[in-house]
Amino acid sequence: MIFPSLAAFEAALTGLRHPDAAAEAAARARQAQLTKPAGSLGRLEEIAIFFAGWQGRERPRIERGRAAVFAGNHGVTIHGVSAFPASVTEQMVANFAGGGAAINALSGTAGLELRVVSLDLDRPTADFTAAPAMDETECLAALNAGAATVERGLDLLVLGEMGIGNSTAAAALCARSFGGSATDWVGPGTGIDAEGVARKSRVVTRALAFHDHASRTAFETLRRVGGREIAAIAGAALRARQLGIPVLLDGFICGSAIAPLAAGNPAITAHCLAGHCSAEPGHARLLDRLGLDPILSLGMRLGEGSGAAVAASVVRAALAAHGGMATFEEAAVAAAL
Amino acid sequence: MIFPSLAAFEAALTGLRHPDAAAEAAARARQAQLTKPAGSLGRLEEIAIFFAGWQGRERPRIERGRAAVFAGNHGVTIHGVSAFPASVTEQMVANFAGGGAAINALSGTAGLELRVVSLDLDRPTADFTAAPAMDETECLAALNAGAATVERGLDLLVLGEMGIGNSTAAAALCARSFGGSATDWVGPGTGIDAEGVARKSRVVTRALAFHDHASRTAFETLRRVGGREIAAIAGAALRARQLGIPVLLDGFICGSAIAPLAAGNPAITAHCLAGHCSAEPGHARLLDRLGLDPILSLGMRLGEGSGAAVAASVVRAALAAHGGMATFEEAAVAAAL
Repeated sequence: MIFPSLAAFEAALTGLRHPDAAAEAAARARQAQLTKPAGSLGRLEEIAIFFAGWQGRERPRIERGRAAVFAGNHGVTIHGVSAFPASVTEQMVANFAGGGAAINALSGTAGLELRVVSLDLDRPTADFTAAPAMDETECLAALNAGAATVERGLDLLVLGEMGIGNSTAAAALCARSFGGSATDWVGPGTGIDAEGVARKSRVVTRALAFHDHASRTAFETLRRVGGREIAAIAGAALRARQLGIPVLLDGFICGSAIAPLAAGNPAITAHCLAGHCSAEPGHARLLDRLGLDPILSLGMRLGEGSGAAVAASVVRAALAAHGGMATFEEAAVAAAL
Repeated sequence: MIFPSLAAFEAALTGLRHPDAAAEAAARARQAQLTKPAGSLGRLEEIAIFFAGWQGRERPRIERGRAAVFAGNHGVTIHGVSAFPASVTEQMVANFAGGGAAINALSGTAGLELRVVSLDLDRPTADFTAAPAMDETECLAALNAGAATVERGLDLLVLGEMGIGNSTAAAALCARSFGGSATDWVGPGTGIDAEGVARKSRVVTRALAFHDHASRTAFETLRRVGGREIAAIAGAALRARQLGIPVLLDGFICGSAIAPLAAGNPAITAHCLAGHCSAEPGHARLLDRLGLDPILSLGMRLGEGSGAAVAASVVRAALAAHGGMATFEEAAVAAAL
């Protein structure tokens, strides 16, 4: 196990790796010599330099990119917080296995390996309005299940999730991590109506009150109002940091997995890019709190890692331009007057 | 020649093709059955339906996508409107041929054929502050050179340009097409300083006054204050419309080629998507006037078709999800409650 104990997880959180400053500087210098006006590739230049820093090489590349998608079930669904029945989590995992889901098509287009990890779907987390969602052993197991999907040699990690009810957990995670009321963070998720949103907000308000007395460490927040797939994302992101692997985060739920970690240590997001800004209203607020500027804003709100997988193609474009373009000297092109 | 006369060009502009409504409706119906909450792929769904309409099939595809990049030189550069010497246009065309430019890397990543067309680089257009940039024969030849790069069987056309000085022409085209003063449309282009921007604005103001008496037809505006590569883009976009080929427009200069056509007939942009919103300040204003919502906003401002080529990967993702996903019935996934 990567994190054999709560103490090991907490130690990993406080001893965060830094990017390779020399590789970053070399990439920045290279950008200034490529045959284009300085800065004219905008965000593509920043992405290339970011990847250079985390991969530790002047010309970063994506030979092995992985999309890791975690699935979990949530006891809180008994309160009618989703537009879909809880059985859909398992059905969608079968759809992932059969190649029929959006993430299959999108990870394929982006040239990513897809790994889907089901976490005890037949054993939903406890209803977190009345109990912690998980006990310590369960939460640690989920963190480790996430960490186990990340190994040395990956050039990019795309994170995603599937779990009916998990935008309710995400709202609770955000509120406990960054403050604000339930209504600041609750939205329609898969598509509930206004009455459903109001019900969902009441559920989150009850959950926040129930856990209000508890410690606000990253682990306690993940354990109390998170879910297995959410803790797995946190574990995968932290493991990627240990190994210097850049991460593309997906939408609101994916980001909410990082929120409890970022509340204690904002630097946790330094190896992460936000693939997109979701149409789920809480996501823009969450990205702001995480200090992340999304690459795409396409009104997507599916989860599964779908938005981050689309962003992976933008990353590929950034690295292709950075690595493949000629310099002014190589191409005998005159620089600016 | 596709447009053997000015009359043929003008006839093409007034008899615009429509998308296939049945294919559009079939694609929309398909989207509603795919294994995801309705609308949850956001802009990706709209892109797929748009391509279905123009390609005339429920499941559109990109087997042959082409990036056509046109290069031209501009007499107006004698007024010091660019950060780079005019000789860079030809040097960059050599860089395209050698595979060292951004568009080589970006079209490669997006799986697009790259076709570069140089238009009389050794014969810059006339200084349009004191004469029409082109005579009628020259402008018609440039329109046809653009149209000739588009043939039946292409599934997507990405348009781009290279031409030192052409953001000055673009500003003049926008002002003549949509009104406003020179300062509303002039920006730093490849990276001139504030003094340079002021000089460029004075040049555009002079040009607008010089041509103010002239007819504001699409052709006259292109001919008087455009350039060969700009007229070629207009010709290529119009030819694509005749053949029902969807177009991805690049940035400010590329869009300015459509402005004179759209001023007379806003429906000209119906087969076009804006690949991105450029950092060049006039572009957001231009997109608004063209009624186009950019797919990407990455702070790019290079031209060459670079932003549109990155957007082509987003289009590929949209079509892959649309064509490859299972329906609720196929995957035995429960629909919304």
